[in-house]
Amino acid sequence: MIIERMSFNQVTLDPWTLERCVRECERLGIPYIAAWRHKLGNCRESAKIIRESGLRLSSLCRGGWFSAPTKVQRREKIEDNRRAIDEAAELGSPLVVIVTGPANEQTLDDARLLVVDALQELAPHAANAGVALGIEPLHPMFAADRSVVVTLKQANDMAEKIAHAAVGVVVDAFHVWWDPEVHAEIARAGKNILGFHVSDWAVPLPGILMGRSLMGDGVIELRRLREEVERAGYQGPIEVEIFNEELWNNADNCMLELICERYHQHVLP
Amino acid sequence: MIIERMSFNQVTLDPWTLERCVRECERLGIPYIAAWRHKLGNCRESAKIIRESGLRLSSLCRGGWFSAPTKVQRREKIEDNRRAIDEAAELGSPLVVIVTGPANEQTLDDARLLVVDALQELAPHAANAGVALGIEPLHPMFAADRSVVVTLKQANDMAEKIAHAAVGVVVDAFHVWWDPEVHAEIARAGKNILGFHVSDWAVPLPGILMGRSLMGDGVIELRRLREEVERAGYQGPIEVEIFNEELWNNADNCMLELICERYHQHVLP
Repeated sequence: MIIERMSFNQVTLDPWTLERCVRECERLGIPYIAAWRHKLGNCRESAKIIRESGLRLSSLCRGGWFSAPTKVQRREKIEDNRRAIDEAAELGSPLVVIVTGPANEQTLDDARLLVVDALQELAPHAANAGVALGIEPLHPMFAADRSVVVTLKQANDMAEKIAHAAVGVVVDAFHVWWDPEVHAEIARAGKNILGFHVSDWAVPLPGILMGRSLMGDGVIELRRLREEVERAGYQGPIEVEIFNEELWNNADNCMLELICERYHQHVLP
Repeated sequence: MIIERMSFNQVTLDPWTLERCVRECERLGIPYIAAWRHKLGNCRESAKIIRESGLRLSSLCRGGWFSAPTKVQRREKIEDNRRAIDEAAELGSPLVVIVTGPANEQTLDDARLLVVDALQELAPHAANAGVALGIEPLHPMFAADRSVVVTLKQANDMAEKIAHAAVGVVVDAFHVWWDPEVHAEIARAGKNILGFHVSDWAVPLPGILMGRSLMGDGVIELRRLREEVERAGYQGPIEVEIFNEELWNNADNCMLELICERYHQHVLP
């Protein structure tokens, strides 16, 4: 049995090696996997493991993190993003998720302008490599330390300004569910939606960085958001990406089965 | 010496009694105080303590919290808000801060509609009492448990829809600083701005509910926001409202002096 469109983002059970992720996804019929650069080790070997499995990559996490105190450091960021694109191409991932990074000693306004400049510069390299760049707005609680892009409207504005076929947006339910404009902005994003991520927002929140929960344990209207991204034109993989200490501490095979069960119950029609 | 326009929100040093807050504010030349309903005890006596001091109230915290599972419970919420308005009038506070509350078993969309209905109903009572109602958008990290209103745009939309002289918005720097639209929405709010609150967003954030820091310990461009609310037409008190465990644990007189110093350094021109 194949679990329709599900992608397992490896950070969800972070203690597992890539090999174990691949093996367990194959066993359970999960068709996609999402990989993190810092977990790849040797990119060529990782690419081989994935290629020899039946799995496909949904995305590589992550590029971005553009702002920096000096011009030299900002150049280094661009070069690192070129490498991320090359790695995605080698792995066979159609998408690099862009987390834009904090202002990092620039003003918030300047750091936001830098994101547009950087993506404009990177877009042709991405297109040549057959890889797309997906701007992922993070929840505003990460505005100071992880992402100067905090709403889907802002990501849409940037993608429209850049206006390059290789640049779009990624909709992560945890990051955008609270936004009164999210429904209109999903419709507006349309074919620019390059990825859709699910997890849940529990009350009380178990943390900030590690604040996400299993689908069904929180308040997010996941099914509604899925329907909206589909209506907008997105039919690609749906990534389960959960940062949660308890999941990491209980990272066994039953946990991945539970994740699949919740995906069926709370995301699929 | 008077500390220009400063209001001390009593929750900042929560362990203090109202009497102590009043005495220390008088000693340091702080012209305003903001009170919390649950700390008032006997409202008449509190009103007397404040009236007999040289202090003025900037606001009473808080009304709102409108949504509830049943119609009967929602009526109780309205009645509680009427009492909040009456208490504000008795204390001599020109403003009740409205924290709209969580969806509380309604959908997010429905809970947002309820806020508009409730304020429309309460506005004439507030006007009769000589009290204004200020919709305070909270940071989106409180969308699930404290406030379905999470952006200044949303608060402005609601205030415009209600279109009653007794209903406006409150701008709290901690809650809105991250928003790419905040500068335009402050200008749009104009004379509808009924209050301005300051604290700071430190990295890493010390918590969620207790996540605020002393002005100068974080990333918020406080002076810029103050200038913008002034340009929009607001010339009223500036409330220092900080929820921070460490401040509560060190609530002595030196702490209030430090707060005044930071207000001078990071908020005033």
